[in-house]
Amino acid sequence: MNVLTSSRIAIDPAYVERLIMETAAFGAYGETGVWRTVYSPEWVGATDLYAKWCEEAGLAVTRDAVGNVWGRLEGSEGGKSIVSGSHIDTQRPGGRYDGTLGALAGLIAIKALKEQFGQPKRTLEALSLCEEEGSRFPGTNFWGSRGITGRIAPGDAEALKGYDDETMADAMLAIGLDPARIPEAKRDDIDAFIELHIEQGPILEQADLPVAIVDAITGIRHYDVLLTGVQNHAGGFPMDLRNDPAAGFAEIASGVINTAHRMGRPAVTTVGRIVPWPNLPAVIPREVRFTIDARHPNPEKRRELYAAHEGLMREVAARRGLGVSWEHHVEHEPCLSDPGLVKTFQQAAREQGVPFMTMPSGAGHDSQQMAAIARVCMIFIRSKDGRSHTPEEFSSMEDIVEGIRVLAAGLHALAY
Amino acid sequence: MNVLTSSRIAIDPAYVERLIMETAAFGAYGETGVWRTVYSPEWVGATDLYAKWCEEAGLAVTRDAVGNVWGRLEGSEGGKSIVSGSHIDTQRPGGRYDGTLGALAGLIAIKALKEQFGQPKRTLEALSLCEEEGSRFPGTNFWGSRGITGRIAPGDAEALKGYDDETMADAMLAIGLDPARIPEAKRDDIDAFIELHIEQGPILEQADLPVAIVDAITGIRHYDVLLTGVQNHAGGFPMDLRNDPAAGFAEIASGVINTAHRMGRPAVTTVGRIVPWPNLPAVIPREVRFTIDARHPNPEKRRELYAAHEGLMREVAARRGLGVSWEHHVEHEPCLSDPGLVKTFQQAAREQGVPFMTMPSGAGHDSQQMAAIARVCMIFIRSKDGRSHTPEEFSSMEDIVEGIRVLAAGLHALAY
Repeated sequence: MNVLTSSRIAIDPAYVERLIMETAAFGAYGETGVWRTVYSPEWVGATDLYAKWCEEAGLAVTRDAVGNVWGRLEGSEGGKSIVSGSHIDTQRPGGRYDGTLGALAGLIAIKALKEQFGQPKRTLEALSLCEEEGSRFPGTNFWGSRGITGRIAPGDAEALKGYDDETMADAMLAIGLDPARIPEAKRDDIDAFIELHIEQGPILEQADLPVAIVDAITGIRHYDVLLTGVQNHAGGFPMDLRNDPAAGFAEIASGVINTAHRMGRPAVTTVGRIVPWPNLPAVIPREVRFTIDARHPNPEKRRELYAAHEGLMREVAARRGLGVSWEHHVEHEPCLSDPGLVKTFQQAAREQGVPFMTMPSGAGHDSQQMAAIARVCMIFIRSKDGRSHTPEEFSSMEDIVEGIRVLAAGLHALAY
Repeated sequence: MNVLTSSRIAIDPAYVERLIMETAAFGAYGETGVWRTVYSPEWVGATDLYAKWCEEAGLAVTRDAVGNVWGRLEGSEGGKSIVSGSHIDTQRPGGRYDGTLGALAGLIAIKALKEQFGQPKRTLEALSLCEEEGSRFPGTNFWGSRGITGRIAPGDAEALKGYDDETMADAMLAIGLDPARIPEAKRDDIDAFIELHIEQGPILEQADLPVAIVDAITGIRHYDVLLTGVQNHAGGFPMDLRNDPAAGFAEIASGVINTAHRMGRPAVTTVGRIVPWPNLPAVIPREVRFTIDARHPNPEKRRELYAAHEGLMREVAARRGLGVSWEHHVEHEPCLSDPGLVKTFQQAAREQGVPFMTMPSGAGHDSQQMAAIARVCMIFIRSKDGRSHTPEEFSSMEDIVEGIRVLAAGLHALAY
């Protein structure tokens, strides 16, 4: 046991800012945006830099079969690893913080612990996950953490088509990764995974707090809905004789949004994608395709929410003489953080004098994948105006440094 | 005065069917569809054929500066012309009947009158109008009838951009029409314009009638609406703090559709085009652009309908903290048919023993443009399932022949 207490942990704001800004240069989009999809040239540049910084910090660098970068600080007592990181890919465009901040935070925290406390008893690893956003290949979310947990099925890389019509396998081969070797990325020697991430919502800002300890990740389901009616001329067809899928869609969208609103926090339901066909002003559409993204961290409430949404879709379609069908391309059960880790990081925040709250995450995160093989916990950093997935996302350097101090203090408690 | 009465008018169904099918071959799309936009190679082929058939019928053919084709049967007493026709362009894809049937009906009716009654006293003209649908150049609707009525402003052809990024002027030049000569298409010697057209709605089918005499064309306004909110992550942002333009859109769309429905026939309101941005499942959109197409043939009711729609948009936007603005790219006042012509064609239907009703048109038509320089009236033909603007639109040969007999009988009453 190192005699120094973790209350002495120092994090250099200038170093943190340099790492954030230099990483953001890879895929820079406008003044503050980043467009860095998995396996792109920008992504290769950012991961090379991450590996270089790990080496400079004295960590042993390895890259696995899906392109995750690991920086390992061996513990004197061996055993399973304590890992901290997040994903290094972005939305198109996203900002500088979503994902990237957590990958850098793991590296910065472990570097600080090594410099200030020497070798740990337990092995610590910093991790840059290759992909989480699904922004190049819809349906590939969590490619990095799914690789680590052995959840990428044979043939997935060949089957998954990107927005630009290439497959995941093509994209891997183009940068020298062999899709046949994906199973080698699997790990079974991780004890705990701690992910620092921006909040992506306004709750911390509203509460005037820099940091949260996350006790659960919400359950998510995406409905990809097809609502079909009868295409007709907008002028000639009386309202009472229409089978108008736009009318049905509007009623359904209003209804599901109101259902989540009335259920109250933390229920959320979003209709983000709407594609009518033929999408012309003077034509009653033949069909409307749309998505419903519906989330709740409580398994029972989540079932209630989904039952209400499905009941409304069936009722509106039947009443309006429309066809309705849906698929789920995204389905993630709620994920509870490990209660022991939650306590450890709450205590770490108290020791560091960092004011915090405990809250569930409304967004999905790599942690929910990692939970299949390890105990998990997350730390949230306050987001300006609650914004994310946009170039405007922003967290202050003060809040970021507070969060990394909490991360480092918790890792110290676990590993030293 | 020819001694034969119009009750003896014969229309050859085989000839009618041949003309419809041979015209439909230009731009044939699938089994029954037609994709024939103005000034396209398919359009050139169809208008050449129309001109050939006019010549074969003994009509004097001219083509005007915008590509309308005229087939003229000179009257013995001179004076202003009595014209019958419609547009020869289609939706993308449309069917065989919308527009084309009226252009062919004018030709078939005048050919039959010439063959069966000889030279008229009044000059009769068959007319193929070049463009009505706006399906190649949004905002160019009624290009043919606007040319004839002198309603194309200098520079319009150069300013109007097509869906494929070329201008109307480019498209005209490509087939040998000089945009600078558009003013020469203007006519001031037309007394009456009678347009036969498919109903494009289910009202005749419901009433079990083959034909209608149209006493008014509805007033139309298109709202091009931009609803703006705040883009955010679908998971992190609580429902009660969102400024979600998709939620506002859904409420507005439901509301305007319900308003028209409750106002009752013939009010119609359609939301045909919806374009959110960025249009991703897990992102609360930043904006939703959409159209409202709202129609009523009664000027006062029409104002009520529009006031209700605008009031709802303002109320929803204010309550949800959204920005809202709109433009009108389509604005057509209601157009009353000439009461004398309505009586003439009602009487013609009675004489021919064709059962009919009198109704307003919910769709816009070239007749409402031609009303600026001539008395107008329309004849509707029953549409199967009320369908139009689709390859599935269909009118039976029996109904079509009945309609052309009414048209020919009315022209006979006016011209002989």
